[in-house]
Amino acid sequence: MERDLTPLFDPKSVAVVGASDDPAKYGHAVAAQALRAPGRRPVHLVNRRGGTVLGRRAATSLTEIGEPVELVVVSVPGAGFEAAVEEALACGARAIVGITAGFAETGTAGLARQQALAARVREAGAVLVGPNCLGIADNTTELYLASDTFTPGGVALLSQSGNLALELQLRMQRHGLGFSRFVSLGNQADVTLVDLVQDCARHEGTAAIAVYAEDFGDGRAFAQAAAVAGKPVVLLTAGRGTASARSAQSHTGALTTSSDVVAAACRDAGVELVATPREMTVVLAARSSGSRACGRRTAVFTDGGGHGVIAADAAEAAGLDVPELGATTQGRLRAQLWEQSAVGNPVDLAGMGEQNPRSYAETMGGLLAADEVDAVLMTGYFGGYAAAGGGLGGGGATLAEGEEQAAHEVVAHWRATPKPLVVQSMYPQSPSCRALAAAGIPVFSATEDAARALAATVTGASGPPGVAPLPPAAAPLGDAGYHGVRGLLTAAGVPFPQAREVSSEAELLAAADEFPGPYVLKALHLLHKSDAGGVALRLADRQALLAAYRQMHARLGAPAYSVEAMADLDDGIELIVGVNRDPRFGPVAMVGLGGVLTEALHDVAFALAPLPAGRAAALLRGLRSAALFAGVRGKPAVDVAAAADVIERITTVAAAHPEIAELEVNPLLVRPDGVLALDSRAVLA
Amino acid sequence: MERDLTPLFDPKSVAVVGASDDPAKYGHAVAAQALRAPGRRPVHLVNRRGGTVLGRRAATSLTEIGEPVELVVVSVPGAGFEAAVEEALACGARAIVGITAGFAETGTAGLARQQALAARVREAGAVLVGPNCLGIADNTTELYLASDTFTPGGVALLSQSGNLALELQLRMQRHGLGFSRFVSLGNQADVTLVDLVQDCARHEGTAAIAVYAEDFGDGRAFAQAAAVAGKPVVLLTAGRGTASARSAQSHTGALTTSSDVVAAACRDAGVELVATPREMTVVLAARSSGSRACGRRTAVFTDGGGHGVIAADAAEAAGLDVPELGATTQGRLRAQLWEQSAVGNPVDLAGMGEQNPRSYAETMGGLLAADEVDAVLMTGYFGGYAAAGGGLGGGGATLAEGEEQAAHEVVAHWRATPKPLVVQSMYPQSPSCRALAAAGIPVFSATEDAARALAATVTGASGPPGVAPLPPAAAPLGDAGYHGVRGLLTAAGVPFPQAREVSSEAELLAAADEFPGPYVLKALHLLHKSDAGGVALRLADRQALLAAYRQMHARLGAPAYSVEAMADLDDGIELIVGVNRDPRFGPVAMVGLGGVLTEALHDVAFALAPLPAGRAAALLRGLRSAALFAGVRGKPAVDVAAAADVIERITTVAAAHPEIAELEVNPLLVRPDGVLALDSRAVLA
Repeated sequence: MERDLTPLFDPKSVAVVGASDDPAKYGHAVAAQALRAPGRRPVHLVNRRGGTVLGRRAATSLTEIGEPVELVVVSVPGAGFEAAVEEALACGARAIVGITAGFAETGTAGLARQQALAARVREAGAVLVGPNCLGIADNTTELYLASDTFTPGGVALLSQSGNLALELQLRMQRHGLGFSRFVSLGNQADVTLVDLVQDCARHEGTAAIAVYAEDFGDGRAFAQAAAVAGKPVVLLTAGRGTASARSAQSHTGALTTSSDVVAAACRDAGVELVATPREMTVVLAARSSGSRACGRRTAVFTDGGGHGVIAADAAEAAGLDVPELGATTQGRLRAQLWEQSAVGNPVDLAGMGEQNPRSYAETMGGLLAADEVDAVLMTGYFGGYAAAGGGLGGGGATLAEGEEQAAHEVVAHWRATPKPLVVQSMYPQSPSCRALAAAGIPVFSATEDAARALAATVTGASGPPGVAPLPPAAAPLGDAGYHGVRGLLTAAGVPFPQAREVSSEAELLAAADEFPGPYVLKALHLLHKSDAGGVALRLADRQALLAAYRQMHARLGAPAYSVEAMADLDDGIELIVGVNRDPRFGPVAMVGLGGVLTEALHDVAFALAPLPAGRAAALLRGLRSAALFAGVRGKPAVDVAAAADVIERITTVAAAHPEIAELEVNPLLVRPDGVLALDSRAVLA
Repeated sequence: MERDLTPLFDPKSVAVVGASDDPAKYGHAVAAQALRAPGRRPVHLVNRRGGTVLGRRAATSLTEIGEPVELVVVSVPGAGFEAAVEEALACGARAIVGITAGFAETGTAGLARQQALAARVREAGAVLVGPNCLGIADNTTELYLASDTFTPGGVALLSQSGNLALELQLRMQRHGLGFSRFVSLGNQADVTLVDLVQDCARHEGTAAIAVYAEDFGDGRAFAQAAAVAGKPVVLLTAGRGTASARSAQSHTGALTTSSDVVAAACRDAGVELVATPREMTVVLAARSSGSRACGRRTAVFTDGGGHGVIAADAAEAAGLDVPELGATTQGRLRAQLWEQSAVGNPVDLAGMGEQNPRSYAETMGGLLAADEVDAVLMTGYFGGYAAAGGGLGGGGATLAEGEEQAAHEVVAHWRATPKPLVVQSMYPQSPSCRALAAAGIPVFSATEDAARALAATVTGASGPPGVAPLPPAAAPLGDAGYHGVRGLLTAAGVPFPQAREVSSEAELLAAADEFPGPYVLKALHLLHKSDAGGVALRLADRQALLAAYRQMHARLGAPAYSVEAMADLDDGIELIVGVNRDPRFGPVAMVGLGGVLTEALHDVAFALAPLPAGRAAALLRGLRSAALFAGVRGKPAVDVAAAADVIERITTVAAAHPEIAELEVNPLLVRPDGVLALDSRAVLA
């Protein structure tokens, strides 16, 4: 159910409660901003002492205004917040922006106050942003209710930090980017990040959604909203390191999520995850150009060999490919260029630009037209002639003119194809580069920024975005013991070796009659049965089984045992498949190399559960040790498709059982001819 | 033997041959630069047509000058280069800067010309920079012989690319950094990167050496020179990716080296390896501050939670630690700060800076004084009050003043300790931040730059720099067959299981009498004996050995076999130890996880050989799978020290045998009680 946020972003009238004439007070800055569009809608200032605020008479209360107010900003001391909200609702407010702090971020008492407030606002049919927020702004409706001004543009910024929003505003300005909306998320007591992403997805004036969040609220709903937004969603978040996780928790009482889970959710949902304000700006600049690359094949085009190789390395480090160009393209370039130019990729004018600046444009045309090129990264000196301009004397002025002309031709070539072009220049502020930027081509001063930007234009890098819906909850698992979990998984189609639960020698021998050896014997109802010596492998026959049973029972005295057919481990690879419940993102799957190498190699990957087989296979093939699946040292390849199918089954059954906090199959043996789950366990919530 | 480059960097007189009045010619730009310090030394311009160049009469030849010239710059068309060099030597030149191109970079004929020239110059007791270079400059001796001007400062820049040097000049200027010298390396026909590093290490005016190189020449000598330079050496290089390696090879005929080897050499030599001009500038800015951190423990200090957590993540991503501060420090900070401030680390003023800007300085003092803090990263808004300045009205001006005062106090606190401080600010150009920068504190706009800079100040991150000298060459290996290599390694103290070479059943049985089973049988003189089925393991006794022999001999008919005692593989870990000869860096060691996992996991590390045991142990402990050494799943820990000792022996013997192109021990079995080499092979050069 998506919420109507029209009263928030396009209210018919606004009041600022706590408007102040004291420049040190936040209510002063907000009031000053609120008055910036006087003709758009009535703006009322309220100060309980009345008097004059910013040259206008302030009402002493909302009631005194004498007419309904649709949006009320509340910036009063903490003790008065509830009363102000009540008065706002009484005066017909349908949206409230709560700047006042002192709620969930201060502890459980504050959280309780906040929850009561949110319930009260919802009951009245209104919406509340905050509390503990810095306000909102909507440049598309001339609504300015934050202390800072945001340059108009296409990016909706939803931020849990005011200073970071300010830094993003400064950085994006330099790239000609601006904001459609700004929302300071605050404590998300009522209106959440998810509500805002959904609303910005619908919002015509918004082309891209930029989020800084420490606490995702309902993280799975965020991922789902982002996956269907139909617009780029770029997420800046912290908590990847131990210190930031520690700090975010103490900072806003945020419930942080492991970086593995956030990264997995972003990959599934098609969200661009970034680590710094600078990276966010670079990605937004790239995505705002509108061009998308259909693949990773990048032509690096330079006027100096050094810049070419540095950019090629940076492109590959950013996950792009820089393949050698085909013979046809090389031949065409060779015909246009000098003998000393390089045409393999990087393509290097090697001084020809100085003789004939139009060679930049001709070469660019050839590269953008080449079938084997998905995108172009231009790097180096371009812009330098125009930057020096008349300073170079007669020849220099001609060069500068030629270069600017080349810039316009580059733009024309770029417009003629859907392929992305990103430029790194030593002279990003030169007239030539400004002409590129004005046309929408991202221009950067740093090579690594250009490479990162180009990587952000690649579509479907990890398949189409999508967050699999949670299956309907199944009947709760009655028995979380060994055979209960095994039964649950077997019913879901996960293959196990034959097994019988036994509690006596007679039952043991009867079980051995049901299937041939070799056998495995496991002691049940023990924590860490393997470490405790409660697993015996490779028991060739009844005698060996009985001997192992007697020895194990004398030692451990377990109440029950499992007799199982021993799987053929030769040519098999042991995987681990686990599903945990994250408080924010719900069931999260982990797949990786299992068995004895699990802890040592920590070669695991994460995804939101349930995990469709196709995505499971991609995850397996992305493991560091994926080469093992193809068979090494003469071993045959294993059946990754069968493993992926079983991973879908395991993760689906886990997702359908919210009472299971943790479900693990380890090892899941993948052989050339199929899959067998050799052990499993569950922990109930 | 270090070369005297005084005639190059501080010549008594200079001539520019090929000086031109045509601004499009390179000889014009160099001549104009050469004339910039008219009082310093005689500067002669030579143009074979004579006439006027830059308002001065040009001599038609060097001879016409009529007096000896110590340094001659040659910028003439390719065909005339040799003649110009001969004339320069005849006129007493002791240094020549060869700008002319068309030599080694064009192919083997050009290389031959270049080698002849270099020999001629050396024979005459002179030195030659280039050919195919862009000139040199020395700001400390007012010598300007390149087309561009370099801001004076402490960095010597040795570059194989002109445009990259230009970009570095632009970037470093913004950080208040400048250059002592600039040398365009060109083809390094005579004066090499190594000569220049050695000379710059001695040069008083140089505080740090910045290198951009595609071809290292004698890479090992470069590493050795850098290791003893006593000054920071920062290396920008390309060729980490496939495209840049392909390109660099075609670009200057450079012999590129695998990025693994370059990274290993840099780590051994204490060289800071960087990937882009921006990273190079960041590292140089950090190292130019002079402060070094004794460890990685970083306090992140912010005025806004968002910046704090982002910077903490960036610091950890850069390899720093951000540990929780101790109780004493937290208590002290708590006494100074607000209730809402965070004191754990990140330390967050949480708005207190706006009430009292001096809290920035007080907190900084406390953090720099804390024993558990090696360095401080300050991040966020600091500078914003002074940036806004009077624009904020009365309160704002007070804030701005307070902030600038705080900046001076921060400088005082920093000066009182040897600990590094790096600042990220949204307002790096503010008066407050400029005050920090002027005092030598690096200030950046981007969080990741600040983190990278701080990481560059950590000393001894991978032990003291040092490149082990090559051992004297040993008598060449006569027999590179199986037992020849085994014998060589055994003599060097590498333990192997007992083994006998046999060529008949009688010899086989005699061998079996010499030591008990189980046995291993290997067919010798076969390529890839393991893949060919030429290795049989776990042969319990004479019978099994004989059966295996008959079966193998019937199948392979190998001329000889090896009967060996089978090692106990339980509780052991298989390593691989290899030594290859890199054409630039000489013997290079590789150690990693061996056996069947070698190819699949590719968990290997490199170092210059020979590898002292201490460094070998560090390399092993740095492997991704290093957790295996401590024992997993109840297994005992293995003897890493014994493995390191054997690695020293293997790499030393390989380094002493230049005729061995490749030496490999795989597997090297490391057990709780020692080490055994189970197989080895060598390839002769």
